[in-house]
Amino acid sequence: MRVIFNEEMKAVADDLDRMAKDVRKAINGAGKALLDADVEAAQAVIDGDIEIDALESSIIDQCVKLLAKQTPVATDLRVVVSTLRLAATFERMGDLARHIAEAARRAYPESPLPEEAKDIFRQMQDFLDETADNVVAMLADRDAKIADRIIRNDDQLDALHHKTFELALSDDWQGSKQQLIDVVLLGRFMERLGDHAVSAARRVVFIVSGFDPSKEPTRDEDGAVD
Amino acid sequence: MRVIFNEEMKAVADDLDRMAKDVRKAINGAGKALLDADVEAAQAVIDGDIEIDALESSIIDQCVKLLAKQTPVATDLRVVVSTLRLAATFERMGDLARHIAEAARRAYPESPLPEEAKDIFRQMQDFLDETADNVVAMLADRDAKIADRIIRNDDQLDALHHKTFELALSDDWQGSKQQLIDVVLLGRFMERLGDHAVSAARRVVFIVSGFDPSKEPTRDEDGAVD
Repeated sequence: MRVIFNEEMKAVADDLDRMAKDVRKAINGAGKALLDADVEAAQAVIDGDIEIDALESSIIDQCVKLLAKQTPVATDLRVVVSTLRLAATFERMGDLARHIAEAARRAYPESPLPEEAKDIFRQMQDFLDETADNVVAMLADRDAKIADRIIRNDDQLDALHHKTFELALSDDWQGSKQQLIDVVLLGRFMERLGDHAVSAARRVVFIVSGFDPSKEPTRDEDGAVD
Repeated sequence: MRVIFNEEMKAVADDLDRMAKDVRKAINGAGKALLDADVEAAQAVIDGDIEIDALESSIIDQCVKLLAKQTPVATDLRVVVSTLRLAATFERMGDLARHIAEAARRAYPESPLPEEAKDIFRQMQDFLDETADNVVAMLADRDAKIADRIIRNDDQLDALHHKTFELALSDDWQGSKQQLIDVVLLGRFMERLGDHAVSAARRVVFIVSGFDPSKEPTRDEDGAVD
């Protein structure tokens, strides 16, 4: 019985790894769409989101079957419950990458960003590309050290996000009202991608250590971490 | 064994009902904070969010214990897995209400909204207050009809949300850049509250009917439903 459980659990873990890789592809592609006005990259992210959604459904089904047919306990149960949560988190990350790609497609052949905002968004994108690599690596190795790094680094993204508001309110801002709307929404989507990576990292810490860091008080005044 | 399971399941269901009521209180309070510049209401929402978070943790613990000690099958299992998802959805709704309350507190004694935006936001708030009532009623009675109504009505909120952008881009807009930023973020928080209510409604349909309406293609081009 335990052998079957582990085999089936392995299949779910493989699907979750695939989901993390698809999310990384979506984040990379959304960045290309946004910063290089690459409309093919935008379309690929939009189309690819269906696959991410399908993987989530499949993972839920597999977890429910695992829970029904067998009685996982202790660590195994923690893994199954955390897998459900991780799949939901990745599904949402796919949606956010899609929203960014959609904004880029709408503005094409222009960029939704005014010139003066591109540098900050490039830095946010570099951060997210690295975070996406970290999420894939953390999951493949169940590496709590990488998870810790994701959780600690998120402040950097929040600081960049804050800078987008400073820029918009400064005299350097030359953009239109539509561009201000886009900058606010795109900044929010990217900040949320970071938050979801943190949430995924906390799940992995929980799987590895049994300690749930999401119960730590981590909320800050602007609600950037939640 | 089944009796114990049902008793314990009842305790979880009671906590979930409590969570829905706390979320309703938070949504009502966030509206007062935002539209009446009521800073006590804002503070109550911000403080109350800790209780919502604690309820989620408690529900997760209870569900994991249920899954470990007993082997729920079929409908019971569907209920436990959906309960985990509903608790996560309500937790997030509490965060969004808190974000609105925080924006109101930051702007106090002013409103974050310019005069010309208040009417649309009042309509969005009325919609959300009614939706919060529907979520509580749907959950108490496991009423798929109310759930259907929540899912269908969400278009109205999306239409109002769209109007906030139209207003901001029109010549009627008199607000500052800071107010435009706030209108975009607050509109987004409120739209997301509606999306999460839809997500909760889909879970209830799934519990009642076993059919998962989230697998239906419902995404629209601006990603309002996801």
